[in-house]
Amino acid sequence: MTASTWLGNAVLPEPPKELLGPLGVPEKTLMAPGPSNASNRVRHALQHPLLGHLHPEMCQLMDEVKAGIQYAFQTKNRLTLAISASGHGGMEACLGNILELGETVLIARCGLWGERAANMAIRIGAHVEFLDTEPGVAFTLEELEAAVKRHRPTVVFVVHAESSTGMKQPLQGVGDIVHRYGGLLIVDTVASIGGESFYADAWGVDAVYTGSQKVLGAPPGITPVTFSPAAEKKIFQRKTQVPVYYWDMTILGDYWSCFGKSTRVYHHTISATLIYGLREALAQLAEERLPNSWARHAAAAMRLEKRLAARGLEFFISNPENRLRTIISVKVPPGIDWKLVTQRAMKKYKVEIGGGLGPTVGKIFRIGLMGVNADSEHVDRVWEAFNDGLKYARTAKL
Amino acid sequence: MTASTWLGNAVLPEPPKELLGPLGVPEKTLMAPGPSNASNRVRHALQHPLLGHLHPEMCQLMDEVKAGIQYAFQTKNRLTLAISASGHGGMEACLGNILELGETVLIARCGLWGERAANMAIRIGAHVEFLDTEPGVAFTLEELEAAVKRHRPTVVFVVHAESSTGMKQPLQGVGDIVHRYGGLLIVDTVASIGGESFYADAWGVDAVYTGSQKVLGAPPGITPVTFSPAAEKKIFQRKTQVPVYYWDMTILGDYWSCFGKSTRVYHHTISATLIYGLREALAQLAEERLPNSWARHAAAAMRLEKRLAARGLEFFISNPENRLRTIISVKVPPGIDWKLVTQRAMKKYKVEIGGGLGPTVGKIFRIGLMGVNADSEHVDRVWEAFNDGLKYARTAKL
Repeated sequence: MTASTWLGNAVLPEPPKELLGPLGVPEKTLMAPGPSNASNRVRHALQHPLLGHLHPEMCQLMDEVKAGIQYAFQTKNRLTLAISASGHGGMEACLGNILELGETVLIARCGLWGERAANMAIRIGAHVEFLDTEPGVAFTLEELEAAVKRHRPTVVFVVHAESSTGMKQPLQGVGDIVHRYGGLLIVDTVASIGGESFYADAWGVDAVYTGSQKVLGAPPGITPVTFSPAAEKKIFQRKTQVPVYYWDMTILGDYWSCFGKSTRVYHHTISATLIYGLREALAQLAEERLPNSWARHAAAAMRLEKRLAARGLEFFISNPENRLRTIISVKVPPGIDWKLVTQRAMKKYKVEIGGGLGPTVGKIFRIGLMGVNADSEHVDRVWEAFNDGLKYARTAKL
Repeated sequence: MTASTWLGNAVLPEPPKELLGPLGVPEKTLMAPGPSNASNRVRHALQHPLLGHLHPEMCQLMDEVKAGIQYAFQTKNRLTLAISASGHGGMEACLGNILELGETVLIARCGLWGERAANMAIRIGAHVEFLDTEPGVAFTLEELEAAVKRHRPTVVFVVHAESSTGMKQPLQGVGDIVHRYGGLLIVDTVASIGGESFYADAWGVDAVYTGSQKVLGAPPGITPVTFSPAAEKKIFQRKTQVPVYYWDMTILGDYWSCFGKSTRVYHHTISATLIYGLREALAQLAEERLPNSWARHAAAAMRLEKRLAARGLEFFISNPENRLRTIISVKVPPGIDWKLVTQRAMKKYKVEIGGGLGPTVGKIFRIGLMGVNADSEHVDRVWEAFNDGLKYARTAKL
């Protein structure tokens, strides 16, 4: 039986040559703002045999993952699950479930991710208002209250860890203000959960998502989310259907058994592989415990910051309180071509260091200290690569 | 440093106990309509170290995956890529990119998936018309033409492999009719690509997606799609933005380097892990070559059908031409509790056999012969498990 017996010349003559060689994947130390490296335990978990999306063993794993996500977010929300998509899918799912056509969303914008959220909200048909600060500068509670008072938003969107600048937005008190004016609070924690303290319930966060591939150290492609009872109520009282089936929480919540019903409803085929990886990543976090993980990330950040400061480098975030422990951003010194630095680090050390992103392109370096990479050994390794890169860039310039 | 130093009693006191035990994953033979088992080669690939979403090695792997998808779909479309979501995401991405508010979509409905597509199209604000046949019965070209003539749809949506019934919809001539009346053709091939002959270009298919976890044997969570030049033109001439950022092809196509530009644009963080698995699955298909894979699936189906017929079982799809080679559907014999059969097969043989879905619940069994499970050894294994299950169900009934 040959191809021509099936449909003559319409068949592409040959399979692609690119696919006839072996898979090539180098080992690198990923210390840009993510993905970070996965632990051996997580990597080993990925090769387990596949399971069906409704097998009892899969349902049990989903329950374990749910408990792990509740722990990571510090919440008791029943509507807690993982979306089968990247962090951007989590952002769009939170906005798409809670926001409706014509409603107002107030977006705190001081980097790339607030901008991205606006892009998504506009597609929903929402009315977008901004609470603008300079890239790398947090808003104050007073500024927030003034903006909320003025725009009376249905939703306020805040980025906890603005990875494009390395800034941490303090969240204590934010939920109170948003709720006082009848709104709901969505928070992006893609780059913070596990590495920075975060309390969804205590801080009054109504919807939050994080990245699997950052501090948690699982593969990308699956995104933990949680919704407060108030957010859940809003979702079920929508005047219109959630515009996207794929992340409609009224159905997805049934698949994840969030609403206390006895049977699960098929929604989509979840990735067993990604569930295995996320389960093990969350299990590692549960074993270490959150306060220890936060402390480990803080210690790594301090160790690196000391070296950077001693070298005379300037931090991009001027207020030390607002510097992320998971992503350290330093200004590119005058006269240095930042690309030479990161290229050298990759070439000679196989260490990835990030440049800027969005408003910070060309202006800063971003060094990720996340998950298994947040320890003194990795700090020393990235410091050596970075310092050598800086020297090299100066020489190359001469 | 203890939890209480961070935020007192607001901290959940203990990490979840469920996560403090080891990961448990049994090995099963997955012969329901999917997911099917992954090969050892694919499973091994999954544990490779993570790479960044724009690393040159990742870009090369994405190019390899793109070439493999073009081969699998038999297309030269440049807008060919994989969406970071399950097959349902592929369905919604195809509809969401091509359809706009107020446009008409004609959906061929003879099982669950046409129904699901309607659910998604309604959320887009499209006007939905149906070309209805009985579950398991294909439409004829005459029926299609009459419906297209009447409704003048912007898009016609057809399921090639209706996994809820085991039916294959012949596609030769369908594109011609759709195009003659100015429409575009979207085809769901989630359960067919690699196991049933399919020619996107020769058949005039404008948008098509398939499942990674069915015949291809990769993990779920990443979905191959392709768009014809006509579909691409429609997407770029939309009056409104694609309603969902996450699968907006005008941006995603730049990330996958589909439009011939020299630089890739960051869109989302792709799952390196799933790319490794899909790359190896597509490489296996390229090595075997499509006609050989089609022939292997046909041979496996014939072997199983012979046994089923000899046992006096009745096929659900009355026209043999329309029976899928990847999913064999047989009627539940009178007096048999289908659940006893599938439960016995799982318990005693660790073999998964499917029951009905949507319109066929309780009426049929569905046996998947996909990917590595489409060979005589697996046919014999599933037959033994199924036959024993039938005997058991009869006895249990007495």
